[in-house]
Amino acid sequence: MSILVVGSVALDTVETPFDRAEEILGGAASYFSTAASLYNQVNLVAVVGSDFPREHLDFWRSRPVNLVGLQIQEGKTFRWTARYHLDMNARDTLDTQLGVYAGFHPVIPPEYRQSPLLFLANIQPELQMEVLEQVPYPRLTVLDTMELWIMTARPQLTEVIKRVDVLLMSEEEVRQYTSQGSIVAGVRQLLDIGLKFVIVKQGSYGALLFGANGTYFSAPSYPLEEVVDPTGAGDAFAGGFLGYLSTVQPGSDGHYAIEDIKCAVVHGNILGSFVCEDFSIRRLKTLTMDDVAARYQKLVDCSHFDPNWHSVQNVRVQ
Amino acid sequence: MSILVVGSVALDTVETPFDRAEEILGGAASYFSTAASLYNQVNLVAVVGSDFPREHLDFWRSRPVNLVGLQIQEGKTFRWTARYHLDMNARDTLDTQLGVYAGFHPVIPPEYRQSPLLFLANIQPELQMEVLEQVPYPRLTVLDTMELWIMTARPQLTEVIKRVDVLLMSEEEVRQYTSQGSIVAGVRQLLDIGLKFVIVKQGSYGALLFGANGTYFSAPSYPLEEVVDPTGAGDAFAGGFLGYLSTVQPGSDGHYAIEDIKCAVVHGNILGSFVCEDFSIRRLKTLTMDDVAARYQKLVDCSHFDPNWHSVQNVRVQ
Repeated sequence: MSILVVGSVALDTVETPFDRAEEILGGAASYFSTAASLYNQVNLVAVVGSDFPREHLDFWRSRPVNLVGLQIQEGKTFRWTARYHLDMNARDTLDTQLGVYAGFHPVIPPEYRQSPLLFLANIQPELQMEVLEQVPYPRLTVLDTMELWIMTARPQLTEVIKRVDVLLMSEEEVRQYTSQGSIVAGVRQLLDIGLKFVIVKQGSYGALLFGANGTYFSAPSYPLEEVVDPTGAGDAFAGGFLGYLSTVQPGSDGHYAIEDIKCAVVHGNILGSFVCEDFSIRRLKTLTMDDVAARYQKLVDCSHFDPNWHSVQNVRVQ
Repeated sequence: MSILVVGSVALDTVETPFDRAEEILGGAASYFSTAASLYNQVNLVAVVGSDFPREHLDFWRSRPVNLVGLQIQEGKTFRWTARYHLDMNARDTLDTQLGVYAGFHPVIPPEYRQSPLLFLANIQPELQMEVLEQVPYPRLTVLDTMELWIMTARPQLTEVIKRVDVLLMSEEEVRQYTSQGSIVAGVRQLLDIGLKFVIVKQGSYGALLFGANGTYFSAPSYPLEEVVDPTGAGDAFAGGFLGYLSTVQPGSDGHYAIEDIKCAVVHGNILGSFVCEDFSIRRLKTLTMDDVAARYQKLVDCSHFDPNWHSVQNVRVQ
């Protein structure tokens, strides 16, 4: 069961309080493809310039990443420069050079159109809508976005939200889009648009899953000793989430069991935690499913507690 | 099994983005006593002025809160004024009037000295040490502190930390005290001082438990639709934590089972969540153990997930 992703492939320069890396592979689709291809085939749609290093293409060719939809155009690859704060849940974008990405329009190759799972990574809502026009009926579509589109392309973003199943947002993005101070109230407003699920990304605090059916699930974060670079954590999360779902069967009604959705969120957290352990996709490149399984077990151990509490004394029940 | 608490009782004026309350009951020991007295007897040591409203004393007398150690001195009760940010995980203190608290020295009545559980709420480390001199061997001592003492009384605070079992700190306090950017590294440094457990309070994100024995537990937060006033959440957390432990038996070695410690953290989260639902101790006053049990079940439901994930396809194990 393959997964289609449309998003950016970029060359990043990232500065953290402790280290710096230049011209490393970045972009949401890069992180997503590398993470999700641990589980299943990924069909990648993106654009890069003629300066894009061949080594990255070679790596993806060594994985089940289909590059037929990757446009290589004369010009410069999209470049992004950012600096993280000491609390690496926050960062500033220092520079953005669109390059060939400025004229990008996604073209979904015919062989990609049967992918039942679709990730609309963080690109302009207009381009996300162009994707939905080309693949109108995926089984499950996950949407990511960012503050820029909430501020500058809100109506278009809302049209896209109406057509997808799962929305990924940070807490800040929920507040910005809904103007609600309360995340719970903001998420309810989002679900009312017609989403099946909203996943609130909380950076180092894990993730919250809210379902239109009333589901609420709080997935623990994995406590990292050292965060080298959190870039791409949200995209790797999406990769783990859809990657895991690509390995399970939905019910006869076409819907995934809620327990599978929860497991998928945990897989998302796991891939998101691994990506932070090094710059770019370096840690994801060496990651194995055994590593994922070991971290899954650790998350079970650190988040489950006695479902029935026992008191030896009579507790005052008023 | 009674619980001894030494800390502040105050009259607060609190402004949130949505509401404001003046001269309401506040102070760490107030929140703690009200929360913990849901589980067991609380022995309170604090000081108030002659202006302290009698209704608060009457309320505590209606609960198992022993007021023998509450000093009532001629003068003004401690007053604290604060304003919360839109993200209510952050606040600014606008004014502090010490009143009779300026000359406070804790005196532990003889009948309190057999309390096996001790909460040293957030007061000057010198005063916390005076308490430890008077009750040298409680079974379990929990310590709270704040940025002010980390900055101005660090050596004294360190001496207190050396003599307690459990330390409560926010993430920011861990970073300030240890100068570590990584919470995991900072907590390790704290455990090296000799603590059995460090509990990292994460506000609306829940709490993390780290044990010297390698225990790691991530307790989920309860997602509140509306946070009216987060003041006292950390103290109510301590009240739920020690309150729950007061109802279970430690092992023959005098140590609590780790499963009980985890349950206690969950009870802490629950009491911390309830206190945010209204100003002051208003919500805690009407809270019943049935309410706590219902929220406990909700936290089980929202944080547990399949301990064994199942994939119908062969996942690539590299």
